[in-house]
Amino acid sequence: MQYNCRRGMNPGFSFNLDCERGAARVARYRTPHGVIETPAFVAVGTQAAIKTLSPEEAADAGVQVLFANTYHLYLRPGQETVAAAGGLHRFMAWDGPIMTDSGGFQVFSLGASLEHGVGKIANIFPGEAGGALKGGRRGKSLVRVEEERVTFKSHLDGKSHVFTPEKSMLIQRALGADMILAFDECTSPLHDRAYTGQSAERTHRWAERCLNYFAATPPRHGYPQVLYGIVQGGAFEDIRRQSARIIAGMGFEAIAIGGNLGRTKAAMHQVIEWTVAELPRDRPRHLLGIGDVPDLFEAVARGCDTFDCVSPTRNARNGGLLRRFDDDGRPLPKFRLNIRNACYADDHRPVEPACACYTCRNYSRAYIRHLFIANEPLGPRLATIHNLHFMNRLLADMRAAIRAGCFDDLKQEWLLPSSL
Amino acid sequence: MQYNCRRGMNPGFSFNLDCERGAARVARYRTPHGVIETPAFVAVGTQAAIKTLSPEEAADAGVQVLFANTYHLYLRPGQETVAAAGGLHRFMAWDGPIMTDSGGFQVFSLGASLEHGVGKIANIFPGEAGGALKGGRRGKSLVRVEEERVTFKSHLDGKSHVFTPEKSMLIQRALGADMILAFDECTSPLHDRAYTGQSAERTHRWAERCLNYFAATPPRHGYPQVLYGIVQGGAFEDIRRQSARIIAGMGFEAIAIGGNLGRTKAAMHQVIEWTVAELPRDRPRHLLGIGDVPDLFEAVARGCDTFDCVSPTRNARNGGLLRRFDDDGRPLPKFRLNIRNACYADDHRPVEPACACYTCRNYSRAYIRHLFIANEPLGPRLATIHNLHFMNRLLADMRAAIRAGCFDDLKQEWLLPSSL
Repeated sequence: MQYNCRRGMNPGFSFNLDCERGAARVARYRTPHGVIETPAFVAVGTQAAIKTLSPEEAADAGVQVLFANTYHLYLRPGQETVAAAGGLHRFMAWDGPIMTDSGGFQVFSLGASLEHGVGKIANIFPGEAGGALKGGRRGKSLVRVEEERVTFKSHLDGKSHVFTPEKSMLIQRALGADMILAFDECTSPLHDRAYTGQSAERTHRWAERCLNYFAATPPRHGYPQVLYGIVQGGAFEDIRRQSARIIAGMGFEAIAIGGNLGRTKAAMHQVIEWTVAELPRDRPRHLLGIGDVPDLFEAVARGCDTFDCVSPTRNARNGGLLRRFDDDGRPLPKFRLNIRNACYADDHRPVEPACACYTCRNYSRAYIRHLFIANEPLGPRLATIHNLHFMNRLLADMRAAIRAGCFDDLKQEWLLPSSL
Repeated sequence: MQYNCRRGMNPGFSFNLDCERGAARVARYRTPHGVIETPAFVAVGTQAAIKTLSPEEAADAGVQVLFANTYHLYLRPGQETVAAAGGLHRFMAWDGPIMTDSGGFQVFSLGASLEHGVGKIANIFPGEAGGALKGGRRGKSLVRVEEERVTFKSHLDGKSHVFTPEKSMLIQRALGADMILAFDECTSPLHDRAYTGQSAERTHRWAERCLNYFAATPPRHGYPQVLYGIVQGGAFEDIRRQSARIIAGMGFEAIAIGGNLGRTKAAMHQVIEWTVAELPRDRPRHLLGIGDVPDLFEAVARGCDTFDCVSPTRNARNGGLLRRFDDDGRPLPKFRLNIRNACYADDHRPVEPACACYTCRNYSRAYIRHLFIANEPLGPRLATIHNLHFMNRLLADMRAAIRAGCFDDLKQEWLLPSSL
């Protein structure tokens, strides 16, 4: 099924629902740079590179789509450098689909996140039950949010910069990702109801400004782009539902669900349910910044289609390699092992013996551990390949399970034994 | 021509001279892991990895043979870990030929090099004329050299370790490189004639001990290894010549020329000439630690066959990309550009437009500069690929020129215009 935008059908995109089972669904998402089978994990390449990986390796690890960062690329190398290269795809030699965020998340991470000492979803760490408030390091906000604009200081050199919804669109037109995001404010779990509500309303006004700018400017690189509206509203049910209805009603061709998503995992599931319930079923839904294994199962079960998250690649660079079971067949609580552990020093098996990734086909745990212990850059690279392959295989298994009508079984099998 | 070892022919190796023009020569060097066409650049993979690169990328960049480090692998991960993996080739998934040094060079770099504040070849920097003594930072030697053994402190944790010629052989048998080196002492340019002479004699006694241990122990991984004798003697003609004659007379199947090689480039050329003049023409000759473009031309002209050097890969990691000419066709003095320079920020051409390497086929200077400026690990990787491809193409050009009888022309063409 083709979908229409308020301002006319976008010829480069289509979102074809192949199969729906409860809220979960499988779709083929056509973009100007190829088809994404959803649910799909979006690999993060903040600065126009998946850290340590070539585009060929990413594709070989099953990566379908990348997520680059508007704020970072605006600061370095500057969007006009990317535009002069012919856009992000040619700049970084990745010919598949790319998403860019809007810079909105950095309003949070340089602002309230720093001031409140909290993370994006919740101020508890994954795996911790209860959700007692745990403030992290706090600092002075580097951001001033006003109706017209956001002023912030660069994390690189402290220089002052201004973002507006229009400027975010301008930058994203220059970068030329296939899928681009409206400029929003991501609130903090410590913001109260009043602030969260006012902020959501401002985000809606910014969304309108983004749509207007987007409609008034042609794509710069010869192929169309699709603009995602972002739902905000924190963990307040009425604000979230209202935000979802408003954003969906504005004619965005695709919808993203922005954080914060509450203080606990349970709250996050609720927030997703409230939001999705208000969204049209025929448009792609992106859940921003989520990507741990249990979160993905819960979000796919609730009808989300795509997911970006740094954790598989960041964990890889710290030696955390994804695995479902330990060597005795027991589920690993956080779905990963620490390859630096001494127990791997003379372990000449692959990280995951049944894994078909480049890393597991060619290298032993002992070798990868050696690379990490000796600070060899090949170590993080081999770990990143494995973790992305693991995530993409997991999403492929989810798609197959939805098609076969056994997604809940797969989910239970993966999540029940773990102590999350 | 097959060559014989004093203790019997080594079935896994042959060194076939295809062509000799003056001292320069082209050969096919057969090893248990494939044929090396010489003259050849040996890419350095100190800790069983070329920093940032996969084995496939190295092969794609024309790398024929790797150089790993006995001392570093003894400390981390330990030779028995490598042996249990099936040897270096399987441990690091490189199926081509590998060399290991003996640990002897670390006797120098942790000892006299530190104490004298000097580098390996000379205490002047390349490109500086005159050769005025320039001491670098000095420190306390971490090494005690005695007839029986060398005692040194690990650069990692200060723990004390002992190396002997026998132990170096034992470690190198365990690591299982195709080509292994006798244990030697590399003297400093600041050592006097008396010390240099006594040290060379000790190195000869150590060489004998290495040969005896090597002959008495079978290879551990099912294929033969070849043992290189190392010529020492500093920049003293009589000691050098004597060392070359003694080492050649001991029946080593292959010969390495060790540093120090004097205080100036001119002295280095002399040292190579003295040494090569005393060596049998039918055995492979490895020049240790040399690999800048002008040095390679001079050493190939004087009959050296293989060369290891960190500089192409180390420079790559610092953003120094090898090129012969600038964009106006003028020779670059050090055969490289600094990709971090602002002039490349919006330069969308490949590093070297005519280069066929993966990096130049796919990425622009602007992108590679961005990766370096943004500290993206893909930057050093792309630079390393280019630099190794550059070196291997240069050596291939040298082989072709020797065959065609125009090596001197090629050498003049490359070296005359540069201000070295």
